Formats: sequence, structure tokens, C-alpha cells
Amino acid sequence: MNIGIYGYGNLGRGVEAAIAQNPDMQLVAVFTRRDPDGLKIATEGAAVVHTSDVLSWKDKIDVMILCGGSATDLPEMTPALAENFNLVDSYDNHSSIPKHFAAVDAAAKKAGTTAMISCGWDPGMFSLNRLYASCILPDGKDYTFWGRGVSQGHSDAIRRIPGVLDARQYTVPIENALARVRSGENPELTTRQKHLRECYVVAAEGADQDEIRQKIVTMPGYFADYDTTVTFITMEELQREHKGLPHGGNVIRTGKTGNGNKQVVEYKLTLDSNPEFTGSVLVAFARAVCRTAARGDYGCKTVFDVAPADLSMVPREELIAHML
Amino acid sequence: MNIGIYGYGNLGRGVEAAIAQNPDMQLVAVFTRRDPDGLKIATEGAAVVHTSDVLSWKDKIDVMILCGGSATDLPEMTPALAENFNLVDSYDNHSSIPKHFAAVDAAAKKAGTTAMISCGWDPGMFSLNRLYASCILPDGKDYTFWGRGVSQGHSDAIRRIPGVLDARQYTVPIENALARVRSGENPELTTRQKHLRECYVVAAEGADQDEIRQKIVTMPGYFADYDTTVTFITMEELQREHKGLPHGGNVIRTGKTGNGNKQVVEYKLTLDSNPEFTGSVLVAFARAVCRTAARGDYGCKTVFDVAPADLSMVPREELIAHML
Repeated sequence: MNIGIYGYGNLGRGVEAAIAQNPDMQLVAVFTRRDPDGLKIATEGAAVVHTSDVLSWKDKIDVMILCGGSATDLPEMTPALAENFNLVDSYDNHSSIPKHFAAVDAAAKKAGTTAMISCGWDPGMFSLNRLYASCILPDGKDYTFWGRGVSQGHSDAIRRIPGVLDARQYTVPIENALARVRSGENPELTTRQKHLRECYVVAAEGADQDEIRQKIVTMPGYFADYDTTVTFITMEELQREHKGLPHGGNVIRTGKTGNGNKQVVEYKLTLDSNPEFTGSVLVAFARAVCRTAARGDYGCKTVFDVAPADLSMVPREELIAHML
Repeated sequence: MNIGIYGYGNLGRGVEAAIAQNPDMQLVAVFTRRDPDGLKIATEGAAVVHTSDVLSWKDKIDVMILCGGSATDLPEMTPALAENFNLVDSYDNHSSIPKHFAAVDAAAKKAGTTAMISCGWDPGMFSLNRLYASCILPDGKDYTFWGRGVSQGHSDAIRRIPGVLDARQYTVPIENALARVRSGENPELTTRQKHLRECYVVAAEGADQDEIRQKIVTMPGYFADYDTTVTFITMEELQREHKGLPHGGNVIRTGKTGNGNKQVVEYKLTLDSNPEFTGSVLVAFARAVCRTAARGDYGCKTVFDVAPADLSMVPREELIAHML
């Protein structure tokens, strides 16, 4: 399978690392909006190409893995590329997924391509676990917890405050809430009861730290609904102690069967590297996209549409013999 | 969807309870080898039919859910019923799955039916989680732990010892082994290091308890490779304290991505009732069997072949809008 990577930030590098672990795939080209001559990639033999030349690669790429951002890149990029490529993206703006789906589905069906959206871990593996557990336990309740992990969006929001040089925000699930959910108590939990937010901030010399703190903890949509701690640290400490991008979380469904028997299903991720795990999910589903397209099954797809055997390098008979 | 239940023990009753939670399904008949007149079932309006009359129900049942045992019932029953019914079974003898698959596949393809085998939680949901995690993290290692829960097979093995009136055996995962696995240490664990076995035994009056204990702890294939505790209790205590059939377990995959970043995926079940949960899984997959058969996709299937959207009562657009 010949793979292209479209966009080469943290996620693009995560995808590249994952391709190297899958012997049935090779990375043939990385597409960038930057100057290709200035970009060094890790894979020997793969081309670095400007995005404006992407169409000349149409017949050389089986699946394009899109590594742009959900806010502005993917809503334009995914439908446009679906006109010429089978692809998978990690569009994660949950509330706008139906709109994104419709645009991508129209483009892919017209072109005869297979385009999978919203793949990764949430949306992605967490969605799958919500779906499986809700089908098995219709009389139940879902909970999703995120963290402990770095939220890029919240870190960016802090960086936009005047006087802030850099920042790292950790989303932290509240242990007591997790324990109550696991016990099958089915609690109603407010936003504040589920997660807290830890912020590590590097302030410019002379900046008013109290004012920065106040702007963070009251920021609507990001911090106002949470208990938020703000710790000012030096740039050296930030770079030394907070350079990783760990993340993870839990999807828990508690349900009842029969005469009130409690059943708890939990899926838990503990990730040293969020972009490398997301990249690994994208690569596994790229394999399924390739097979789906080969069967002539075109249009927009999601993780819900993929039979799990299609994700594997291992032949079906071997899966049945050794993994079932 | 019209459902039949073939066999009415603990699992059959678990399936019956699950059908009642799924408004798009109805139980139309329970098939039993016993005298149908002597069998009371929980569902009003469903028939109780002797297994010898099953063929007269051929056109009234969309999917038959088989609730026989794996040791002797299902190897005969599943291929035979696949000649006339779409079906799902919970065949759980892992090492003989390929043989069972071949027999069922031949019968189902010849008859034009869809027959899913080895559905439940292990094999079943645990298998799915092993597959997803291994596709995402090809450079990694799988661990499956079972318990704390009642093993029916091990309880039966104790009951066959002369002087034993009744017994209950719990399989218990060893916490220290779980902790080492979750830490990403990738330990090599012996059978004895992963699980221990707790036995609660009711001995006949005058029976030699030391001899019974010795027979249990040295029993090859069942207890000899484990640290096993044997506690003698009264029949009253057994019936009071050990009447449930709880179970569960963990599937954990630890893998490495990029430059040695550790990624841990864990799926965990904590079940008050093993047969009711297994029954609930069977019912969700029966829905997929019905849809698969309607598309003319015949033969033997497994959980690996089912696109998750096919398990749900909820239309695909709603799943995409609300669960992705």
C-alpha cells in the first residue's frame, strides 16, 4: 500500500512513525505547504512535495492520510482531496461532524473514492467503544473521561493572552468521579465534577501574573466551568518537564441486565504520545480504506463502517485461528 | 426481528432477558430438549417447543440464538441448524474454532444462511479488543486476564470428585501481575503468576477433606499449574454467599511507537452476571446477523466480520451525529 501524508506537524510525524511499523505499507510522499526543500523527513526514499503539486501524485498513492487541523484545514481539505484520493482524516469537531460528513460524502461519491473521517481515538476508538457498549447494554449510561493529558487547544488559548510566552494545559479526570462511575452508581456529573485543568505558564518579564491567572480561570468555553490551577514556571522548566504530549482517558458504560445485575464495560488509554497513537490509529484504518475502495464501496466512511478484520495485516483464517 | 432461543439454561435465560431490552426484537420461541409442557419461560406470548419440531419454525425465525454447551452440543448443533436458520452461537473452545468454523461455513454456504460463531465476551468482545489493539500497536504485546469470576468448568471438575456435594471455583487475576503489565514492563508471566484459583467446597459428611483438597490442587489441566486455595463450607453458606455468576477480566496491550513512547490500551469487564452479559452480546450480534443475511452475505461469520454500525438499533446518521 502506497501512503501519502498531507501535512507534516506532530500528527504527520506520528503517522510517519506508524507506517514504519507496518511492513505492508510504504510512505511515498509527504505534502507540505512550506518550502519542500526546507523540510527534512525521517523516511528515506519518500518524496517531499509542495501541496500545489498533489494532483500529479494521483496514481501513485493508494490512501492519503490528512494531518491538518480541524478548525480551518480539514473542512476545506478533506472534500477537495476526496475528489482525487482515497483518504482518512482525524476531524474532531464533534458538533460539526454531520456537516463535514455530508461535504466529504458528496465529493467522494461523485469521484468514486473512499474517504474516512473522524478517525483517531476521540473521535475514533472511544466512539467505537461507546457504540459497542451501548449496543450490548441498551439499559445503561455512558461516561467519557479525558486525561491526564495535554490539551493543545487549551494550551493555545492560554498562549494568546498578552504577557504569556508559552503554556501547557493538562486535562485531569477527577478520581472520585471515576470511582463513582465504576461503582455503577450512575451519577449525574457536572463539567466541574468530571475534570480539572492544570495550567503551567511562562510569563514575560514584568507581566502581571495575577491578571494572567484571572484571564485564564474566567475564560468562557475553556476554563470558566472548571476548577483550574495556574502555576507560573520558567521557560527552562517548561521545556524540561512538559515537552511530551501524553494523553488518554476512559470510556465507561454501566448498565443493568436481568433483575438489576450491574455490568460495567471500561476502555482505557494511557498514552505517552497522543500524536503517535492517533497516527497509529489512522494508519490501521488507512488499510481498511484501501480495501474498501478496492471493493468499489465509495463515499464517506467512519470507524463504525469498518469490519475489524479489514484493519489487520494478518489473513482472516489466521485471525480466526489465533486471535478469536 | 423474530428471535428463537435454542437451549434454555443460564445462557438461554440471559438471552431472553436481553431480548426484552431491545424493542426491535421479539422472542418467538424457546426450543428445549426437555418436555416443553414442564418448562416455564419469562416471556409472555413466546412458544416453548421441543427441539424435534424446530424445522416447522423455519420461516418464523429470523435469527436463532444457540445456547448449548461448547463441549458436546455446539459442534453438532450449529452446523445442523445452519442448514435451515441464520444463527449465532457462543462456541468457546478456542483451540477447536477453525474446525468448528469450517463445518459451519460449509453448511451455511450450501444452505444460504448466515451463521456467526464464537460470540460473547471471550471469545467475542475480548477478541475484538485484542484485534483492534494489535492493529493499532503492531510493536506490542497482548495480555488477557480473567476474573474475579466463577468458572463453571472448574466448578464442575471439583463436583466430580467423590465426596463433593457442591462447589464453586473463582478465577482471580493476580493484582501484582496486572500492575506490571499496565506499567508497560512487558513481563513474561507464567500461568501461576497470572491467576490464582479459589475453591469453595461442600463435602459430604464423613468425607476426607484432606484427600479432596489434595485431589483438587493436583488436578492436571485444571489446578495443578495454579496456586489454589480450598475452603470447605456448608451447603447453606454456598447457597447464600456464592449463588451469583459474576465474572469479567481485562485485555491489555502495551506497545511502543516512535522513539520508544509507551502506549497502553486496556479493555475491562466487571460483570455481576456472566450469562446475562454473554446473552446481551449474542443479541446485539444477532441484529448484525439478520442484516448480513438480508444482504445475501452467507456463510460462517465471526465478530471480526461485523461493521459496528450493524449492531445498533440507531440509524447510521444518528450514530454519526451523536456517538462519533
